Amino acid sequence: MSIVANRPPFTIADWRAAAQEKRQQLDESIPASFCLPEALLQQVHSEHGPYSERPTLLDSGILTKLDIEITSIVNVPVLLKRIATKRYSAVQVAEAFCKRASLAQQFTSCLTELWYDAAIKRARWLDDYQRREGRVIGILHGLPVSLKDCFDVEGANSNAGLVSWLPYRASKNSCVAQALLNAGAVLYAKTSSSQALLSVESINNIFGTVKNPHNTELSAGGSSGGEGALVAAGGSILGSGTDGGGSLRWPAAFCGLWTLKPSKERVPGAGISAPRSGSESVNAGIGPLAKTVSGLELWMQAQLASEPWNYTFGCLPMKWDTVQAQRPSATKLKVGVVWDDGIIKPTPPVTRALQIVVEALSKAGHTIVSLPKERIFPLHRRSLGCTMLSNVQDGGRTVMRHINASGEPVVPRTAVGSAASALTAEQVFDNHLLRGQLASEYNDIWIEFGLDTILAPATAHPANPHGKYISNSYATVYNMLDYVAGAVPVTFVDQELDVADRDWYDGEIYERVEPDRFPYDLGDREMKSLYTSPAVFKDAPVGVQFLCRRLREEKCIGILKEVEQLLAEKTG
Amino acid sequence: MSIVANRPPFTIADWRAAAQEKRQQLDESIPASFCLPEALLQQVHSEHGPYSERPTLLDSGILTKLDIEITSIVNVPVLLKRIATKRYSAVQVAEAFCKRASLAQQFTSCLTELWYDAAIKRARWLDDYQRREGRVIGILHGLPVSLKDCFDVEGANSNAGLVSWLPYRASKNSCVAQALLNAGAVLYAKTSSSQALLSVESINNIFGTVKNPHNTELSAGGSSGGEGALVAAGGSILGSGTDGGGSLRWPAAFCGLWTLKPSKERVPGAGISAPRSGSESVNAGIGPLAKTVSGLELWMQAQLASEPWNYTFGCLPMKWDTVQAQRPSATKLKVGVVWDDGIIKPTPPVTRALQIVVEALSKAGHTIVSLPKERIFPLHRRSLGCTMLSNVQDGGRTVMRHINASGEPVVPRTAVGSAASALTAEQVFDNHLLRGQLASEYNDIWIEFGLDTILAPATAHPANPHGKYISNSYATVYNMLDYVAGAVPVTFVDQELDVADRDWYDGEIYERVEPDRFPYDLGDREMKSLYTSPAVFKDAPVGVQFLCRRLREEKCIGILKEVEQLLAEKTG
Repeated sequence: MSIVANRPPFTIADWRAAAQEKRQQLDESIPASFCLPEALLQQVHSEHGPYSERPTLLDSGILTKLDIEITSIVNVPVLLKRIATKRYSAVQVAEAFCKRASLAQQFTSCLTELWYDAAIKRARWLDDYQRREGRVIGILHGLPVSLKDCFDVEGANSNAGLVSWLPYRASKNSCVAQALLNAGAVLYAKTSSSQALLSVESINNIFGTVKNPHNTELSAGGSSGGEGALVAAGGSILGSGTDGGGSLRWPAAFCGLWTLKPSKERVPGAGISAPRSGSESVNAGIGPLAKTVSGLELWMQAQLASEPWNYTFGCLPMKWDTVQAQRPSATKLKVGVVWDDGIIKPTPPVTRALQIVVEALSKAGHTIVSLPKERIFPLHRRSLGCTMLSNVQDGGRTVMRHINASGEPVVPRTAVGSAASALTAEQVFDNHLLRGQLASEYNDIWIEFGLDTILAPATAHPANPHGKYISNSYATVYNMLDYVAGAVPVTFVDQELDVADRDWYDGEIYERVEPDRFPYDLGDREMKSLYTSPAVFKDAPVGVQFLCRRLREEKCIGILKEVEQLLAEKTG
Repeated sequence: MSIVANRPPFTIADWRAAAQEKRQQLDESIPASFCLPEALLQQVHSEHGPYSERPTLLDSGILTKLDIEITSIVNVPVLLKRIATKRYSAVQVAEAFCKRASLAQQFTSCLTELWYDAAIKRARWLDDYQRREGRVIGILHGLPVSLKDCFDVEGANSNAGLVSWLPYRASKNSCVAQALLNAGAVLYAKTSSSQALLSVESINNIFGTVKNPHNTELSAGGSSGGEGALVAAGGSILGSGTDGGGSLRWPAAFCGLWTLKPSKERVPGAGISAPRSGSESVNAGIGPLAKTVSGLELWMQAQLASEPWNYTFGCLPMKWDTVQAQRPSATKLKVGVVWDDGIIKPTPPVTRALQIVVEALSKAGHTIVSLPKERIFPLHRRSLGCTMLSNVQDGGRTVMRHINASGEPVVPRTAVGSAASALTAEQVFDNHLLRGQLASEYNDIWIEFGLDTILAPATAHPANPHGKYISNSYATVYNMLDYVAGAVPVTFVDQELDVADRDWYDGEIYERVEPDRFPYDLGDREMKSLYTSPAVFKDAPVGVQFLCRRLREEKCIGILKEVEQLLAEKTG
């Protein structure tokens, strides 16, 4: 069910001026003392690898030793405990993350808003509360949590990457933001997305291109790419995004993070600013991004602790079940593996990541079943075709109205749809029937193989050079099925292990699915042309995803905990 | 999400012959010893009032004293306990219900199938099991449960009131039927519905018109009317139906029964035979009909005890929460009342039924709030308009294909849709946005008034003379909102108390909603013409409904328990 009636766009006389003004506001919101000198900035761009290993930023003098200590914590419960035990004040923590977010912004263009003063004020209030009451106010007391720009926060702009929404100010908090506040979080930053949230990369005409902190030549993914870049760069310990076709899983996979994409309506969508055509055929989930699984679970707990179903209607009344979310240490899992979807053959690093995870699971006694390609290939091809049709079935009417209201151009490869992609009502309905049929056939696979979860690539390739993503095939099919998906960071592109060898090049080139109606994605042939060498993807993280059946968020978290532990043991 | 791809209709050369053959099969399935002599049958038709008070049937000699005792039990747990304690064998119980269902069929035309031999065989197997294992097999051990015809049962026909489906044989059980079998139920009968399940009354070209056992001149309601008639006539203690616009609540209100209409996907729809256009804009619930609330709860428990979400995909993984379903004896409820929807003014008996319930609730200390008509009238009018559009948005394409395949005529007032009612994809999407807006506005009412539940008419009028229903206004709006609805039988039409007085006639005549696109419903003016005297609705039961928010089935059952107790205390 749609969450709210659509909001008309504002009419913008000069889109360039409006975008410029917005960028200037953002720049002005960043205290001068948080800004890198130009020379250092150039140096940062040339550095690759995990943010924590970039000496230029850490040694720039902007971050104190305490700031570095605080923002280097990856585990949310660890930081929360240090606040609860007063090792750090909430003000110290807010200060540290505002600084580090400002630095992240300067080399990744991840932010849309920074609320430094408000964050410090809120943190001070939380410190006072803790002092006065002798306890924390909620499970996220003092934790800075970032938000994808589309989440409304009272008084602030939400623009979804659209110039025509820049004059908009939210009159109240989105459910997601309110739940975070109820849990004691500090809201301090919002982050950039794709234009209209409709691309695998985060590029829009207001803020430009979000860059990957591991290598700024590469994409941070989209549409929640600002969140991905910010969390990966240490500017946030817990991010919040949306995923209607892979928009949490691409940033997670491209930036080396964990995410949970819940099923539709597990987390309420009220107060999310996005163009709504009224097409209800796409299943979007709302979820967190973090560097550890514990962060994902705390975010979900905070969302559902508010019992949002009591004040909004687009949310299922399902409490978080901590027992189901436990690491399944006593039971052995049965894991089906999709090694290849028959649409885009995974690149060498992605196949290697799957192998790493399979090996770790096998060693721990879990059962691995390679799902037969005779079943998977046709099912995924039909499913991707079905999804592509539905994703642009309104023919771009709604999105183009919001783009045209400012006169901004369409960012290349933004999946706006076109007159040619518009379906008739009969075609929409027929496509629903097909989707039901496909869901039924995929359901048979779970039952037939007795699966607990499915392991699959999150994308065929790691973070790509800007503007060059290939296809959304592995991610979006699972939106169609409304499965729960958890993305796992596994490794990094390796210049020796991930060469583009004969195994990768040889064999059938898969035919493209729906190139006419959905020209935004490319195909297997283009994949082969892009992944000519691991050098093209230097220092890119490599991730995979685990799928669970619809609304099994707790089960998925439990599986991610197991995988996190097994991968840590392997590394450790 | 649609449950399965559509099944094509069979082509039927001579629809009259096919229908005749099916009726003959049904007749032949009823043992001759269960058939009333023609003279007695005429006498039964002339008798009015609750079935249990009809001397002709009870004295006909067909039912033994034990048959009458067994089938006069209204409380499901009482019957189950007597089977569990071996006071009755499952065979005795099956025998009694098969007989009484046969009698009900003869004066209400409620059945489509009777499986006497199979039921006795199954009951014998259950008796053997109990003897051998020393325990019952499940929570419905030995209980005969009836099914609306559309629920697939392996090997049997499902026709949804369509001649072109008569050759169909189900290859496996519907989830609903399977769950009942898993719980130990005995399946023995399926019941008649509206043509294609698309009317407020149960009339089709195969079995004719289902008659109300309280007064055979009146409708039993639709589309689950066969279930309503069978349960009211004592031929079933627990029925199973579907409600996409009121199809459980009309039979319940018209026949004097309790029902629970759950939200979409709380109970799985897999294996329900109905024409599917692929339009997903209508929210249908699947639920039980019974003479006491305990029956409703047991049916729900049996459905969810199977954890159907583990083997089908169109079902939310939400277990039955017995604590939430308890009678809320310690807490006081806040009940909002919709006395009138501004579309069809309720007839005098319906208003009286609301008053009876309000008085009982008030006396017990619950808080009653009459919801302001300034809010309710426009909201219901817009909601009904929205629902009417979506209910026929495919322009009848799918249904007409299934009707035309046999050449059978459209039953008058069956909501098949027409070229004029077809929406474009853009109109479908716009209507979704409107629905979201309306749901949001209705949601505000719950919050603003702090409501636990809403009390409203289930229909503006009690069971009407055949073919003369007025409007689906009170029921179908709550499908649009996907609320949980519980129907409560309150009283009967009273020839003295329910006169059509000035209060009823005077005042504004409400304008009809959507007469062009949805010509099946009539309006307030026609309601005034029909309810000229309570004599027209002689002996008709009168019911109301309680609404709870989406997926609050347990809360609704708890409230129904409270109301059942309060009404019993009042009567007792």
